[in-house]
Amino acid sequence: MKFVIIGGDAAGMSAASRAKRKNPDLDIIVLEQSFDVSYSACGMPYNIGDPERDMEKLVVRKADVFIEKNKINLFTGYKVKAINRAAMTVSGTTVQGESFSFDYDKLFFATGAAPVIPKLPGIDLPQVMTLKSLEHGKHIKSYIKENSIKKAVIIGMGYIALEMCEAFNKIGIKTSMVKPGPVFLPWLAPKLADVIYEELIQEGVEIYSGTNIKKIEPLDRGVNVVCSKLCLKADIVLVAMGIKPCSEIAREAGLDLGIADSITVDRQLKTSDNNIYAAGDCADSYHIVNNEKCWIPLALRANRAGWAVADNICGIETSLKGVAGTSVFKVFSLEVARSGLNLQEALASGFDAVENYVKTRSRAHGQPGSSSIHISMVADKKTGYLLGAQMVGQQGVAHRINSIAVALDSKMTVKDFAGTDLAYAPPFGPVWDPLLTAANQLVKKI
Amino acid sequence: MKFVIIGGDAAGMSAASRAKRKNPDLDIIVLEQSFDVSYSACGMPYNIGDPERDMEKLVVRKADVFIEKNKINLFTGYKVKAINRAAMTVSGTTVQGESFSFDYDKLFFATGAAPVIPKLPGIDLPQVMTLKSLEHGKHIKSYIKENSIKKAVIIGMGYIALEMCEAFNKIGIKTSMVKPGPVFLPWLAPKLADVIYEELIQEGVEIYSGTNIKKIEPLDRGVNVVCSKLCLKADIVLVAMGIKPCSEIAREAGLDLGIADSITVDRQLKTSDNNIYAAGDCADSYHIVNNEKCWIPLALRANRAGWAVADNICGIETSLKGVAGTSVFKVFSLEVARSGLNLQEALASGFDAVENYVKTRSRAHGQPGSSSIHISMVADKKTGYLLGAQMVGQQGVAHRINSIAVALDSKMTVKDFAGTDLAYAPPFGPVWDPLLTAANQLVKKI
Repeated sequence: MKFVIIGGDAAGMSAASRAKRKNPDLDIIVLEQSFDVSYSACGMPYNIGDPERDMEKLVVRKADVFIEKNKINLFTGYKVKAINRAAMTVSGTTVQGESFSFDYDKLFFATGAAPVIPKLPGIDLPQVMTLKSLEHGKHIKSYIKENSIKKAVIIGMGYIALEMCEAFNKIGIKTSMVKPGPVFLPWLAPKLADVIYEELIQEGVEIYSGTNIKKIEPLDRGVNVVCSKLCLKADIVLVAMGIKPCSEIAREAGLDLGIADSITVDRQLKTSDNNIYAAGDCADSYHIVNNEKCWIPLALRANRAGWAVADNICGIETSLKGVAGTSVFKVFSLEVARSGLNLQEALASGFDAVENYVKTRSRAHGQPGSSSIHISMVADKKTGYLLGAQMVGQQGVAHRINSIAVALDSKMTVKDFAGTDLAYAPPFGPVWDPLLTAANQLVKKI
Repeated sequence: MKFVIIGGDAAGMSAASRAKRKNPDLDIIVLEQSFDVSYSACGMPYNIGDPERDMEKLVVRKADVFIEKNKINLFTGYKVKAINRAAMTVSGTTVQGESFSFDYDKLFFATGAAPVIPKLPGIDLPQVMTLKSLEHGKHIKSYIKENSIKKAVIIGMGYIALEMCEAFNKIGIKTSMVKPGPVFLPWLAPKLADVIYEELIQEGVEIYSGTNIKKIEPLDRGVNVVCSKLCLKADIVLVAMGIKPCSEIAREAGLDLGIADSITVDRQLKTSDNNIYAAGDCADSYHIVNNEKCWIPLALRANRAGWAVADNICGIETSLKGVAGTSVFKVFSLEVARSGLNLQEALASGFDAVENYVKTRSRAHGQPGSSSIHISMVADKKTGYLLGAQMVGQQGVAHRINSIAVALDSKMTVKDFAGTDLAYAPPFGPVWDPLLTAANQLVKKI
């Protein structure tokens, strides 16, 4: 059987490696448009913030290892342009401009996502960059090294924007963030967003929400980011307005697309074509809380779904449960985490949702080094189910959120969650864990 | 209604405060033999390790606050000696030697636990101490301050022993640990115990397992701890061989006792007498994994059970689910955590138990500051249920264990746990969380 994979990143290489392990006779072909496969993309902002570290350190496994050791037919520099579902072929051109075509029995879209780039005059200027591929990361790092960069403007305020804000700050680049949307972090409970806002201001970051960007003008030195109410000079501009699924080829081939144009897949990761799978940042998934389709591109899901595709291809029938959208990031001294639905999402899903905010401590009474933990927790008044939680704090946030993810997977009520036997020791938390305090208070509102 | 509480620590004061809030007309009497109520007992080792900090900082609320602000009839220095179930009275003597007697309608044993003290010649020497009450903590701290203490011997190797080992080390006291049992930390998976053993040796701690202690002899300066094969000189000896429930009065009154002589209670915390409750370190509980009775004295349970007793007294019928025995402690650079059953406990409970050990990393590939995380995870082969997990590592252990506690509460299979959507960001873990890697590997053994 010929198993062709478009895209050699998290989902694609996970599937290729696992399929080869499960069925060594399988004829696996991976077509990757770049020359990088299997690297820690999420590590790039931290790497850029440390001039001593080589970006190559993020590479987990090089292409030739997959080819020589794992015996996978991995073609780098191969850009797929189209698929023919009737003929069951994939075609495109190489970086060198040569045409190629491969037959498939089973096809797997692991095409990932691409940065959203606004159509602005000046967006193509050499000072304007984005961060998605390792190539992007290397370019930003060498550009900073080779030029005297004192000032950055980041367009957008998502995870990458915030992580890059810290990276720039670490290497002495003053940063302004700007975006058209009026709310700083709209997906976060307002009181939690305020904590992050204050932290950024403290660190000297300028934040301009609700500000339209009109154009980027070249200057003698650097550029001018011309906005509705102000002009921001910059030596470097990072566009970090989010990402969109790479689903153009799938669309042109007539596959069903869903939310945000992600490729629609069932729980076996199968698209609307029985011989074609999709997973990772290009595909949708079910949300574990509301059972609705969602598009939440995250690394763990890409790896897990890659495995599931491989299993299904190899005859081991595998269905995935939904995602909880659990995520965490670090911005300056703060850990920020979420899992499940926020209040707005819960209300939009038709839940009789109620939210509670608590501010607790990260350590026990009398234990030094304690700091604040802010929690927003959401439940359904009708059923008592826990729907989600968000946390911000200097310590004890990143791993605590996992207990929420497990509770959501188990469809726990807030009352049951409040009764769980969580750990306690003075250096790690109060007797009543912050999440238990949050749950105890939320129970009263149900 | 007269509600009499014996013991004014975690369980007792939680119950008193909550009962007063729920029913201000309730006539609540708390009888506490010491003069300290409501303090962070678990914080004492950390406090002793820091000469700059006052032990009083551990006091959450003083007795007079409960009396004046909360209007609770709290009597300190009141030692209960007996109860009369027929007459429904509690009697005893005060520290001043005066007799007292109170009637009750409902009685609550919150008598806690006391250190196990071996019957050894020399155990009463002034250099020999134990650590349970705040009085003990203050005594150890002032003894160290007032005497030139260079060498300590700790008898026992439990949580308190290990925490005190670190505390002594921090203030320059060289420490030896000794105990009769042959295995260093028998409740921990051997590979995890080895990690802690190595850490202690690295820090200069001497460990003598399988060593009987014969007597403690006074010297001109300090004492000699005479053991089966060796003699250990010490300026201070800490007895930390574990604790036992304070259930003598309950036993004498004819109440049912269970495991380790803890007071037997049902899920409403009611003893074998319909008018008498017990909770906290003196009472037993159900284990959430095997549904069997167990005695696992921990602070969160004491507080939670105190609340439940108050609710039941006030007519709000409340049952508690079981405990998972989730616990965590810090020893030098290591975090050590567990929840649920270990392999031996699981086998003893009749499960077709299987264990898997993994060593993973605390951070993502290419992210500096990563260290090892060691995990032992146990499952039932017959049902696939997760039964427990233990973790040791320098970071990311203490709060991660909570997701196991929640999974155990939900009676999750290892396969379902392996499918949960845990958080990922390079500074906080690999893409596949260490617990997911552990679960993925364990699934293969089921």
